Amino acid sequence: MGDPFTTTRRGGFTAEQSAALELLRRSSRFLLVGHVRPDGDCLGSQGALARGLRQLGKDVAIVNPDPPAAVFEHLGRGLAYGAFDGRLPEHDVAVLLDFNELSRTGAMAPLLERAPSKKLVIDHHPYHGRPWWDAAFVDVSASATGVLAWRILGALGAPVDAAIASAVFTSLVTDTGWFRYSNTDAETLRLAGELVAHGVEPAALYGGLFQRRPADEPMALAAVLGRLEYFADKRLAVTDQPLGNGGAPELEDGDPLLDLLRAVESVEVVLYLRELEPGQCKLSARSKGAYDVNALARRFGGGGHVKAAGATIAGPLAEVRRRVVAAALESLPANGGGAR
Amino acid sequence: MGDPFTTTRRGGFTAEQSAALELLRRSSRFLLVGHVRPDGDCLGSQGALARGLRQLGKDVAIVNPDPPAAVFEHLGRGLAYGAFDGRLPEHDVAVLLDFNELSRTGAMAPLLERAPSKKLVIDHHPYHGRPWWDAAFVDVSASATGVLAWRILGALGAPVDAAIASAVFTSLVTDTGWFRYSNTDAETLRLAGELVAHGVEPAALYGGLFQRRPADEPMALAAVLGRLEYFADKRLAVTDQPLGNGGAPELEDGDPLLDLLRAVESVEVVLYLRELEPGQCKLSARSKGAYDVNALARRFGGGGHVKAAGATIAGPLAEVRRRVVAAALESLPANGGGAR
Repeated sequence: MGDPFTTTRRGGFTAEQSAALELLRRSSRFLLVGHVRPDGDCLGSQGALARGLRQLGKDVAIVNPDPPAAVFEHLGRGLAYGAFDGRLPEHDVAVLLDFNELSRTGAMAPLLERAPSKKLVIDHHPYHGRPWWDAAFVDVSASATGVLAWRILGALGAPVDAAIASAVFTSLVTDTGWFRYSNTDAETLRLAGELVAHGVEPAALYGGLFQRRPADEPMALAAVLGRLEYFADKRLAVTDQPLGNGGAPELEDGDPLLDLLRAVESVEVVLYLRELEPGQCKLSARSKGAYDVNALARRFGGGGHVKAAGATIAGPLAEVRRRVVAAALESLPANGGGAR
Repeated sequence: MGDPFTTTRRGGFTAEQSAALELLRRSSRFLLVGHVRPDGDCLGSQGALARGLRQLGKDVAIVNPDPPAAVFEHLGRGLAYGAFDGRLPEHDVAVLLDFNELSRTGAMAPLLERAPSKKLVIDHHPYHGRPWWDAAFVDVSASATGVLAWRILGALGAPVDAAIASAVFTSLVTDTGWFRYSNTDAETLRLAGELVAHGVEPAALYGGLFQRRPADEPMALAAVLGRLEYFADKRLAVTDQPLGNGGAPELEDGDPLLDLLRAVESVEVVLYLRELEPGQCKLSARSKGAYDVNALARRFGGGGHVKAAGATIAGPLAEVRRRVVAAALESLPANGGGAR
C-alpha cells in the first residue's frame, strides 16, 4: 500500500481513497461522529480532522454519544466536542472516525441513518460485511486512524499546527500503547517525530494521559495483588476483586493491574475477575504469547481478541474463579506458547 | 547543531567531532569500555559501534567492569561483551561510551590510564572539568549516546543491519523511558522509525527489556503499597520496606513502585525508604513537578537530579521516615509546583 517510507503519502492513494478525498474537498458542512465512549484514537482523529478542515474554511462540528474522558481535555482547547443531546446539526457529510458501523453511535444511529447526508468512513479496522457507506478512506495496515487523518490533511494541503500535531500524537499513542505494541511500525514512529517537530511535548502529553490516576488506586491495587495466585509453573496469573474489595478502595480500572502481571517474565496468561454484583462477575483476560484468550472468553459467553478478551459470568466469585482457572489450565499448552 | 531534521547528520560536524571521526577512520584496534553496572544506553552504543566498526574491517573488543544484565542478552548475539578479568586486550584507541571519566570504569581505570592508547569519549553528558581525552564526540543535546553512535556510523559509511538497529533502539528507549521523558525529541522518534524500518520489532524488544519481572514482585509490591501514606493534600506520597518486608517477598527494584505512585494525579513528590540493615536506610525520591528532590537528598548526604535523587541515611526506619517526611513537607511550596 504505497511507499512505507512516506508518512504523509500525498500520492499513492487507492481509487476509493481518492474519491473520499474528493468528497472532503467539494463539501462544506461536516459532522464528525464517534462511537460510544470514544477512545483516544477516535477523539484524536476527530480533533485533527476538525481543525484541519476548519483551516481550509469548512464548517465542522463534532458530536459523540458520550463526552470525552477528562484525560483528553487537551484535545478540546478551542474545539468543542459535543455530546449527543437528541439533535444533530445540519451537515452535508457525516464522518465516522475509527469505526465502521452506524450502530456504534448508540442513540445517534437512527438520526444519522435518516439524515440525507453522505456517510464517509475513515478507519483502520477490518470490515467483513457489504459496504454500506458513500465513501471510505480505509487502511487496515495503519497503526491508528490518526495516521489516516494525517494522510488526509496532507492530501488536502491543510496547514499543520501544534494542536493538530497533538491530536494525531494522541491517536498514535492510544492505539500503539505508547509505541509498545506490535502495530508500532516505521511510519508511526517517523510520524511521531514529525509531530514533535510541530510542537508536541511527549512528556507533557504522557503526564496528561497516563499520570492522572486516582489517589486511592495504589491501595486498591495492593488489596487485589494480595489475592494473586499462580498456576502451571507461574505461567497463569489469577486474581480477583470481591464486592467492597475487602475493605480497601475499589479498583475501578483493571489496566494497571493487568499490565503489572503481564510484566512478570514467567506469566503467559492473566485472568482478573471482578464481582460486579452478587452472583455476577466480569472476567478480563490477557495473553502475552500464543495462548488465545478470545477462545477462553467465548467459552463463557464473551469474546475479544487473541491477546485481550473479556466476559460477564454468572455465579459466586469463588466458584467463577475456579471454573475459569480450570478452563484456562485445560487449554494451556503443556510446552508453553512462548512468552512473547 | 546541524539540521534537526536529519537523523544521520552525515555533514555538519564540529571540528572536535570531525577529529574524532578521523581517529576512528585511521585506527584499527579498538577497545570499547563502559562504566560500572553498564546501562542500556552504554551497552547499546557499544553494540552498535562494535558491529559497525567490524563491518568496516576494524578489530574491536568490548570490556566492561561488569557483565550486562540479563535483560540485555539480545545485544550479545554474535558479539562478546567482556567482563574485566584484570587484563585488557591490546588496542590503539580506547572508547568511553556514555560517560566521560576514567574513574567510572572502576578497577579498569589504572590499566586504561597506563595503556599507551588514545582515549576517545563519545557521550551526551555535560563535563565541567578540563578535557583530559585525546578526542571527543560529544553532543549534550542528544537524547542518548546511541544517537551519537548512529551519527558516527553514518559518517563512517558503515552498513546498518538489524542487530545494529536493535542496539541503537535499546539506547534510545533506555534513556528516554521508552519515549516518555522530556528528552524525547523529533530526532529520537524519527531515528526510532528508521530503526524499525531496519528490522527492529518494538513489541519484542519491549517484552525482552521490560516484561521480565520476577514472579514474586507483585506480592512484594502489595506489601510496600500497604504502607503508603499521603501528606499535604496527597501531593506527597511516602512508603517504605522494612527488613523482611513484613513477611512478603523483598522488593528488589523500586522502579515499578515509584512509577506507580508518580502516576497518581495529585502526587508531586514520592519518597520510598528501604531498610538495608538495622539502622541503615536507603531513600529514593522522585518529583513530577518543580520540587527539587536533589536538594532534599543533599540534606541527608545524598544527591542526584531535580526529578530523581537518593541518599543512604543512618537511623531506625520509622525515625528516618519521620525525618525525611518532615524535611519534605517543610520544603514543599504551599501552592504546589505544578503537577508536571
